[in-house]
Amino acid sequence: MFLFQEAEIQKVVTLNQAAILRVEDAFSKLAAGDAVMPPIMRVDIEENNGEVDVKTAYIRAYDKFAIKISSGFFNNPSLGLPSGNGMMLLISTETGIPQAVLLDNGYLTDVRTAAAGAVSARYLAPKKVDTVGIIGAGTQAGYQLLALDQVRDFDHVLIYSRTRERTQQLIDRVEGKISADIRPAENPEEVVRQSQVVVTATPSRDPIIRREWLHPGLHITAMGSDAEHKQELDPKLLPEVDVLACDHKEQCFRLGELHHGLASGVLSKDHDIVELGQLTSGSRPGRTDDRQITVCDLTGTGVQDTAIALFAYHELASAGMGMKVGETSR
Amino acid sequence: MFLFQEAEIQKVVTLNQAAILRVEDAFSKLAAGDAVMPPIMRVDIEENNGEVDVKTAYIRAYDKFAIKISSGFFNNPSLGLPSGNGMMLLISTETGIPQAVLLDNGYLTDVRTAAAGAVSARYLAPKKVDTVGIIGAGTQAGYQLLALDQVRDFDHVLIYSRTRERTQQLIDRVEGKISADIRPAENPEEVVRQSQVVVTATPSRDPIIRREWLHPGLHITAMGSDAEHKQELDPKLLPEVDVLACDHKEQCFRLGELHHGLASGVLSKDHDIVELGQLTSGSRPGRTDDRQITVCDLTGTGVQDTAIALFAYHELASAGMGMKVGETSR
Repeated sequence: MFLFQEAEIQKVVTLNQAAILRVEDAFSKLAAGDAVMPPIMRVDIEENNGEVDVKTAYIRAYDKFAIKISSGFFNNPSLGLPSGNGMMLLISTETGIPQAVLLDNGYLTDVRTAAAGAVSARYLAPKKVDTVGIIGAGTQAGYQLLALDQVRDFDHVLIYSRTRERTQQLIDRVEGKISADIRPAENPEEVVRQSQVVVTATPSRDPIIRREWLHPGLHITAMGSDAEHKQELDPKLLPEVDVLACDHKEQCFRLGELHHGLASGVLSKDHDIVELGQLTSGSRPGRTDDRQITVCDLTGTGVQDTAIALFAYHELASAGMGMKVGETSR
Repeated sequence: MFLFQEAEIQKVVTLNQAAILRVEDAFSKLAAGDAVMPPIMRVDIEENNGEVDVKTAYIRAYDKFAIKISSGFFNNPSLGLPSGNGMMLLISTETGIPQAVLLDNGYLTDVRTAAAGAVSARYLAPKKVDTVGIIGAGTQAGYQLLALDQVRDFDHVLIYSRTRERTQQLIDRVEGKISADIRPAENPEEVVRQSQVVVTATPSRDPIIRREWLHPGLHITAMGSDAEHKQELDPKLLPEVDVLACDHKEQCFRLGELHHGLASGVLSKDHDIVELGQLTSGSRPGRTDDRQITVCDLTGTGVQDTAIALFAYHELASAGMGMKVGETSR
C-alpha cells in the first residue's frame, strides 16, 4: 500500500482535459448503470459549525475504488485555516485490501468538482460565450473559472461575492491564468444579466439567482448546494428552463437545488431532468439551440471521486512517486 | 498528521480490561445521546463476493472521531489472504483536518468487536460459568473467547464449526492463552445444551441455534449478523427470552438478528429490548436471576470504532510512535 502527499499529487494531476475526460467517463458509467454508489454519509458537528462527508462509488471494470472524506468547518478561516479539507483512500475491488492513501487535503475534490463544472458547460453552455459570471469567491469559485476556460473561449469575466475584498483576492489569484479580462460586479443581478455562463459556488442558504434575471442563451451551473439547507437558485425557475440537468437525480432530489424544487412544490420527480451521464454518453442531447436557457445542479458524486483518485494513482505510480507503508504483520 | 502501522498498534492495544472499559464507555455515551452515529455506508462488490463497510460516530467531548473502513471478501482465503481487512482514520472534531491514519489491517475492529462481546457477557452472563461455547472458528471466534476470559472464570470450552480442521486450528491458536480445557463439539446443539455462555461468530445466512436447545441460565451473544442477509438465531426464540439486548436498536432492526425477528413477524419494535449502553450506564439492570435466559444481538457500532481508535491514538502518541506525514502545501 502506498501513501501519497499533496505536493506529489499536485505535480501529476491538474485541472486539464485529461482530468475532465476522466470525470466525463465516470458520469457515463454512472448513467449506464456500471457503478454502485451508496448515499453520502454525513457527520454534522454542529458545536463547531462543521460537517464531514464520506462519498464513495465502485465503478465496474476498475480494480480499485475510492472512499473520500471531505470536511467543511466554517469557523476555520477565523483560525487561519481553510474551511475545506479531506483525503482519499483507494481500496482493491478484488480483495478489499487498502491500496493507497491520498493525503490531498481536498485538492482532488477541488479538481473533480471543477471538472464537473467543465462537463456541464461543455454540453449545456452556448458555443459562443462572451462573458462568464462567477458568484462566490472561495477556492472552488476560482477552480470553476479555470474549468470553464478549458471548454469555452470567452473575453470577459464578472465576479460577485458578498465582500469586495474577497472578490479582489480571487481576481488576484486567477489573473494571468486565463486570458480574459476579469472585473468585480456590483451585485449578482449584473452577473446573471451580462453573462452567457454563470457558475454559483457559494455556501448560501437562500436563493441568490432570481428567475426575472434569466435571459435567452444563458447557462447556469449551480454547484454550491450539496446539503439540504443549502440553496442558490430561486426554485421557481427550475421547471421553466429549456434543459434542466444535474449530476445525479437521486442525490439532487435529496440535497441540491432540485430538492428545493420538490420541497416547494414547483417541481415533480416526473419532470424531464437530464443527468450529466446521459449527455456525456450521447444518449441525450444537451443544448440544441443558442437561445435556450439551461441549468445544471451539481451536488458532487462518488463516481467523480473514484475517477479522479484512479487517475491520480495511475499518474503517481507511473512517475514512481509515493511511499510504501502498512505491511501486514499478522 | 500521523501514520501508524499495525505492528505499532498491536504493541499498545490488546484485548484487555482497559480496551473493554473504553468500549463500555462508548456504549454509555451512545445511550446517553452524546454521540452522532450515521447509518453504516456499504459498498457491495458482488462479482468478487465482497463488501466494504464504512462506520463512524462522533462522541461529544472528544477532539477527534474515527472513520473506519472494513472489508469482507469471502474469496480471499482461496487466494491465501484473510477475508477481513480495514483501516481507520481520525479526524479533528474542531477543524475537520485528518489527524491520523491507523493502518491496522482490521486489528482494532477485531479488538473492539470482541470487547463488545465481553461487555455483553459482563452484564448478561450468569456469574458462575462452567462451560463456554463458541460457534464459528474464524479470527473473531478466537477473540470472543479471549474476551469472555476477561469477564468470567470458566473451566471448559466447547467449539463447533462446520469443518473440524478449522475448529482444531482455532483450538491450537487459543490454547495456552486461557486456562480452560478446550475441545471440539460434534454439533451446535451440543455446544448450546452444555454451555452457560454461547457466542456465535459466523457469516451464516441461516439460523444455527434452535429455540428447543435453550435452557435456564444460558446467555447467547450473536455477533455474526451485521448485514440483512446474515442470521444465526431462530427468530422465534427472540421474544421468548428473559432479557433481549443489543448494541444499537436502530441498527439491529436493520441488520441483525432483530431484523429477522421483525421480518418474520415474531418481534415488534415495541418489544422490551435493552441496549448495551443502558446496562453499562446503569440505567437498566442486566441479568437479575441465575435462571434467566438472555440474548444479545451485536452488529458493531461506529462508537466502538471511535472509542478504540482514540484509545490507540492516545497510547501510540504517549509512546512516541508513528510517522509524521501529509503537510499542507497550499
